[in-house]
Amino acid sequence: MATSKIVKGTDITLSIKKDIQDRIVRFKNTRPKLVTIRIGESPSEVSYETSILKKLTPLGIECNPIVLDQKITQQKFDTIFDKVNNDSSVNGILLLKPVPKKISLEHVNKTINPIKDVDCIGLTNIAYIYQKEKGFLPCTVEAVQKIIRYLDINQKGIEIVIVGFSQVIGLPLTLLMIDNGSTVTVCHEYTKDLKKECKRADLLISATGVVNLIGKEYVKEGAIVIDVGVNNDTNQHITGDVNSKEVLPLVKYLTPVPGGVGAVTTYVLAEHVVTAFQKMSFQN
Amino acid sequence: MATSKIVKGTDITLSIKKDIQDRIVRFKNTRPKLVTIRIGESPSEVSYETSILKKLTPLGIECNPIVLDQKITQQKFDTIFDKVNNDSSVNGILLLKPVPKKISLEHVNKTINPIKDVDCIGLTNIAYIYQKEKGFLPCTVEAVQKIIRYLDINQKGIEIVIVGFSQVIGLPLTLLMIDNGSTVTVCHEYTKDLKKECKRADLLISATGVVNLIGKEYVKEGAIVIDVGVNNDTNQHITGDVNSKEVLPLVKYLTPVPGGVGAVTTYVLAEHVVTAFQKMSFQN
Repeated sequence: MATSKIVKGTDITLSIKKDIQDRIVRFKNTRPKLVTIRIGESPSEVSYETSILKKLTPLGIECNPIVLDQKITQQKFDTIFDKVNNDSSVNGILLLKPVPKKISLEHVNKTINPIKDVDCIGLTNIAYIYQKEKGFLPCTVEAVQKIIRYLDINQKGIEIVIVGFSQVIGLPLTLLMIDNGSTVTVCHEYTKDLKKECKRADLLISATGVVNLIGKEYVKEGAIVIDVGVNNDTNQHITGDVNSKEVLPLVKYLTPVPGGVGAVTTYVLAEHVVTAFQKMSFQN
Repeated sequence: MATSKIVKGTDITLSIKKDIQDRIVRFKNTRPKLVTIRIGESPSEVSYETSILKKLTPLGIECNPIVLDQKITQQKFDTIFDKVNNDSSVNGILLLKPVPKKISLEHVNKTINPIKDVDCIGLTNIAYIYQKEKGFLPCTVEAVQKIIRYLDINQKGIEIVIVGFSQVIGLPLTLLMIDNGSTVTVCHEYTKDLKKECKRADLLISATGVVNLIGKEYVKEGAIVIDVGVNNDTNQHITGDVNSKEVLPLVKYLTPVPGGVGAVTTYVLAEHVVTAFQKMSFQN
């Protein structure tokens, strides 16, 4: 239960961390291993990679970052990927995105071992979401789900408005929310009256990358707002889609950026790596 | 362009049929081949199988129905499927559904050749929809798309309400409609005020299987209604989700059942088989 309007990610991740540590401790001589693959030196990718190392290592997850030159060839990239994909000591593979435009992810998407596909980029896991089978949800989407559960939101029949329909977040999030019994409206750049649509929401989820998109006219009183945006504002601060100054007085709950969804996402990644580790240990 | 309010499937399929025949005629000595697989004698499956044979054969598509006993074992079913899947003379495989509960489609979904997966049941094609790559949409969903184009509906920014979220129709339809730039609301059994939601729609698409669900209070004046329902009413007549007597006076267009979406669906299947045939011919 949230004790204030602002839903801090750290309130949710406390129990996730403990659960992960309990699960790892049972495997005495081996540790789960996550390989991250980064091409180039984009600051946001470096930052996410650092954050992953910093948060997952103390839990007992071994993190091996692979850093490749921006100019890497398709063939070399695919070969390096295959090695990691076939390495039985590796339990999770995370590809930091976006990759350079000249690099195609077709081979990766087709061949990534679904067990190691901890951020759900491969065809098999994607189809699993679609068919509602066991597989990994993208980490950010599962983070939103954990927040919803943490807030004890009864999803059946509520109005959810999702703003932004990216393949990585908006799409799977939409499928998940409908599956949970909510009436879901999806809005995007072509939506005619975004304020009117958003104001209908009991739960408003914004994942657009537009700073200060969601102001007071977008929110009905008592609504819950989950901000999935991760943007750099004019002062190079991380900020979300929501104008929290305007919105906070109106809502029941709001997730802050930073320290909201993003904070939970990294620990969902950790959970996925541990799950993969457990599956692969039982296979051997 | 529709010349009356009632959108007859046959108005749309005329050009599809001609296009298919033109495409087949270029391949002088071979014909596209579709294999349908039916388990048991369910009347609706027999009826669909018959309809396929009747409509596709005159176009030059060879249709081979495989009929299996209700009591077939999993292993036998998978073996028969593998044979068809690996047969280079077969261009399309259609599995009539639903299959008996004890038969799992896991092997089929995982291994079906995406080129032959003309009704999009396999993981690869499903993931293709998700990733917006080239592959087959489920035939019914593409039929709806053709109707929308035929009616010259400019989808960007319009309000679409989809009622019913089945994996086979509602889900891919939702993804497609959002991709086309519409603001989409998905409703289902848990939706609290279905009339209110439906009345917002510029385009209302119902695929629930509930006879006479959509009455006059569900429709705003001038709306377009696409009825995807295929139900048996109390007199054993095929009917849709829409109470056409009530709804027709209000709407701009309405697709009838039968003779609407269903009529187009079978010819979309034919198009898919021919596309598969062309792909496989170029491979050899």
